[in-house]
Amino acid sequence: MVNTLFLPELREMLAENNSFELHEFCTALHPARTAEFMEGLEAADSWSVLRHADLKLREEIFAYFPHEKQIAIIQTQDRSEIAELLADIAADDRVDLLHDVQPTIVEELLPLLPADERREILKLREYPENTAGAMMTTEVAMIGDALTVRKAIDELSREAEHLETIYYIYVVDRDQRLRGVVTARRLLTALGKPDKLVRDLMDIDLIVVHTSDPSQEVTAKVAKYDLHAIPVVDDHERLVGIITHDDVIDAFRQEATEDAQRSAAVAPLEAGYMQTSLLTLWWKRGVWLTVLFVTAMFTASALRYYEGQLIRWGWLIIFIPLIMSSGGNSGNQSATLIITALTTGNIKLSDWRRILWRELLVGLMLGGMLAVAGFCVAWFQTMGPEHKSHSYVWWPLVVPLTLVLVVTCGAVSGSVLPLLFKRLGLDPALMSNPFVAGVSDILAIVIYMTVAVLLLR
Amino acid sequence: MVNTLFLPELREMLAENNSFELHEFCTALHPARTAEFMEGLEAADSWSVLRHADLKLREEIFAYFPHEKQIAIIQTQDRSEIAELLADIAADDRVDLLHDVQPTIVEELLPLLPADERREILKLREYPENTAGAMMTTEVAMIGDALTVRKAIDELSREAEHLETIYYIYVVDRDQRLRGVVTARRLLTALGKPDKLVRDLMDIDLIVVHTSDPSQEVTAKVAKYDLHAIPVVDDHERLVGIITHDDVIDAFRQEATEDAQRSAAVAPLEAGYMQTSLLTLWWKRGVWLTVLFVTAMFTASALRYYEGQLIRWGWLIIFIPLIMSSGGNSGNQSATLIITALTTGNIKLSDWRRILWRELLVGLMLGGMLAVAGFCVAWFQTMGPEHKSHSYVWWPLVVPLTLVLVVTCGAVSGSVLPLLFKRLGLDPALMSNPFVAGVSDILAIVIYMTVAVLLLR
Repeated sequence: MVNTLFLPELREMLAENNSFELHEFCTALHPARTAEFMEGLEAADSWSVLRHADLKLREEIFAYFPHEKQIAIIQTQDRSEIAELLADIAADDRVDLLHDVQPTIVEELLPLLPADERREILKLREYPENTAGAMMTTEVAMIGDALTVRKAIDELSREAEHLETIYYIYVVDRDQRLRGVVTARRLLTALGKPDKLVRDLMDIDLIVVHTSDPSQEVTAKVAKYDLHAIPVVDDHERLVGIITHDDVIDAFRQEATEDAQRSAAVAPLEAGYMQTSLLTLWWKRGVWLTVLFVTAMFTASALRYYEGQLIRWGWLIIFIPLIMSSGGNSGNQSATLIITALTTGNIKLSDWRRILWRELLVGLMLGGMLAVAGFCVAWFQTMGPEHKSHSYVWWPLVVPLTLVLVVTCGAVSGSVLPLLFKRLGLDPALMSNPFVAGVSDILAIVIYMTVAVLLLR
Repeated sequence: MVNTLFLPELREMLAENNSFELHEFCTALHPARTAEFMEGLEAADSWSVLRHADLKLREEIFAYFPHEKQIAIIQTQDRSEIAELLADIAADDRVDLLHDVQPTIVEELLPLLPADERREILKLREYPENTAGAMMTTEVAMIGDALTVRKAIDELSREAEHLETIYYIYVVDRDQRLRGVVTARRLLTALGKPDKLVRDLMDIDLIVVHTSDPSQEVTAKVAKYDLHAIPVVDDHERLVGIITHDDVIDAFRQEATEDAQRSAAVAPLEAGYMQTSLLTLWWKRGVWLTVLFVTAMFTASALRYYEGQLIRWGWLIIFIPLIMSSGGNSGNQSATLIITALTTGNIKLSDWRRILWRELLVGLMLGGMLAVAGFCVAWFQTMGPEHKSHSYVWWPLVVPLTLVLVVTCGAVSGSVLPLLFKRLGLDPALMSNPFVAGVSDILAIVIYMTVAVLLLR
């Protein structure tokens, strides 16, 4: 829902160019709320409002604008004002933004930035997407290991303004190699002994990531060790940046969305659903739809093989979808349970024997339950006199027996395949679902027809 | 992989009861790594090692043990030592732990705890699970609004040891009503003017949650406003606790796991996969498997209705699974894209017209692609002379035309249903997938048979 509460007032202030009221509007609320109230404004109008806030606040409100509005503002508004804004934005967010701005405009903006910010951008842009290097900000609280507590606090209170977080303060040697970490809390409690050396307060067993580590490794480490932020070091163990918890939460959300899309056989979208062009959507969905279509072709071949029997005992046709979907659903359940358990570290590859045993038992229990329902359905659906196969003694057992076997095979193959993919070094979330669907469909038809031929012979 | 690197040494130290070396082991590494190295030890042995660490460190290492080991230790080890440990654990984590300990043991432990910790536990236990009240810790950095910067820092440096985070410092009035917030960074930078009042430094537009707010609201707010921690207030707007980012990350992970399980038609598990009993697994999967079975029964009824035609044109049977799975996959893709876009706020209910239009176009594009493949497959699979329907002029068009219609209907119903559920105030993630599967299966059969009857007439 677009927040339109203040829109008429805002438009009026803009029309009158009422500096005082526009300034008031920008400062009165939390920056996130201010940005919310501007949702209904065009990029150009939003920027006209922002120009009445001082630079620091302007940057904060701007940070809460939707990504598309940010890009629109950067591309259309006065270059030197935009450069001034960009110089103030955290280094990691700035690179993310410029990534989506037209290259010709970036080239125009770069010379307007202060030299060190420009170098910063060129450096960060070199790291590939979804690596720790691309996630980090270079503004990190860093102090020499030879400082005293008093000196350290003096230095920090001077620098604190420019830093994204001072929860952790990193201690480095002369060559900027990371030596230790001290929390702001520890430093504060040590104020009583101001001449103590920082070196004697710091923790030396550090959890770090390297610039080239993938973002999944960063999120996993932060979650595992319950960190507020994680330092990033280069190949020479020099401290080059920090990844803070908000970037980790963003990465988590993105991972969760991508996992959901992958498990529904959509190649992850790079932009939001609404910003993705129809052609891209077509391609991202079409690839996997085609793969699934090819696996479904095998089920067509299997059915063709049994065409004669199916025409002879026509009532068997009725239950094909029921049996295939029961096997597929059971397999999908198992695959998802195993994939989420692997992700959260609840199970390990070495547990495979116990997992298979559990899935075999649960599969039999679920299959047995559905078999009872299947028996009733089959009886009810084939009561008519046109179903001549009723002269066979065992016909009422075909559907229930098939269900037990199909659901159990679905559960077992649904748990084996993700474990197998993991063992082979592939991402189980990416590959498992189409394969489980394909395998369980073919199994379902082969089992169904084999059971039918054996019992109706 | 269990880390067994130090296990032989640890067992030896335990056998010798070598206090010095066990103490060294506990202090040498990051607590998370120390806990890792103890993974192979039983609960009792792990506790014997921990007893050689001082209380603070003991609690830190204990916090990194797997949940099951923590419970085992609490239930089996010396009650007064456990009480001493519990008294030191953060209030929110303590309540989570005691939640899973046998009630009789909790009753034995409670009297051994200091009176205020005991009151704390009884109070926090009253909040229902998955609410802000149950997530929060009560140890929050809180100062009166009449203090000066110098006094505030003095007070904080005394209290800092007991607090989980001092990133945000909350400012309250005499009645403990929340008035404002000041970051530790801001306080540090104000050290130059020690007589300034905290009241004049603080931000007053606060983002808060209430004790009864559901955990999804907490995670959404923290992510939206990029907060390090969020304050929790009671019905009288009094500050009662704080939820820190690590609890938010845990909640995020749990939500992502539950969403994945729901979309695979598994009722979310409360414990890990390995800790869930077979009976519970059976129940959590069986409920949804039965629901899906019932929807599949409708497809059986639909097929039964067309049994005569299917026997007459036997080759139609071969393509039933292919057509149903294409429609189902397309619907599943759309539903997941819409659900994730709703979750991340990328689309709103009011966009429904544009969404339907997009899905209609993408569905036609995808259906068109599969139709080409379907035409080839149908031609190839039914080449044999036994397929007498080849005397009909239009027979090669049955499968392709059906695919276009089925894939498009799948895409549209896959996007309509989540929007509809959202509109009705239901959780789209919970209800959509089974319904989309059921609807698209029945549509597939009805469309297939209608197209066949019209073209082969």
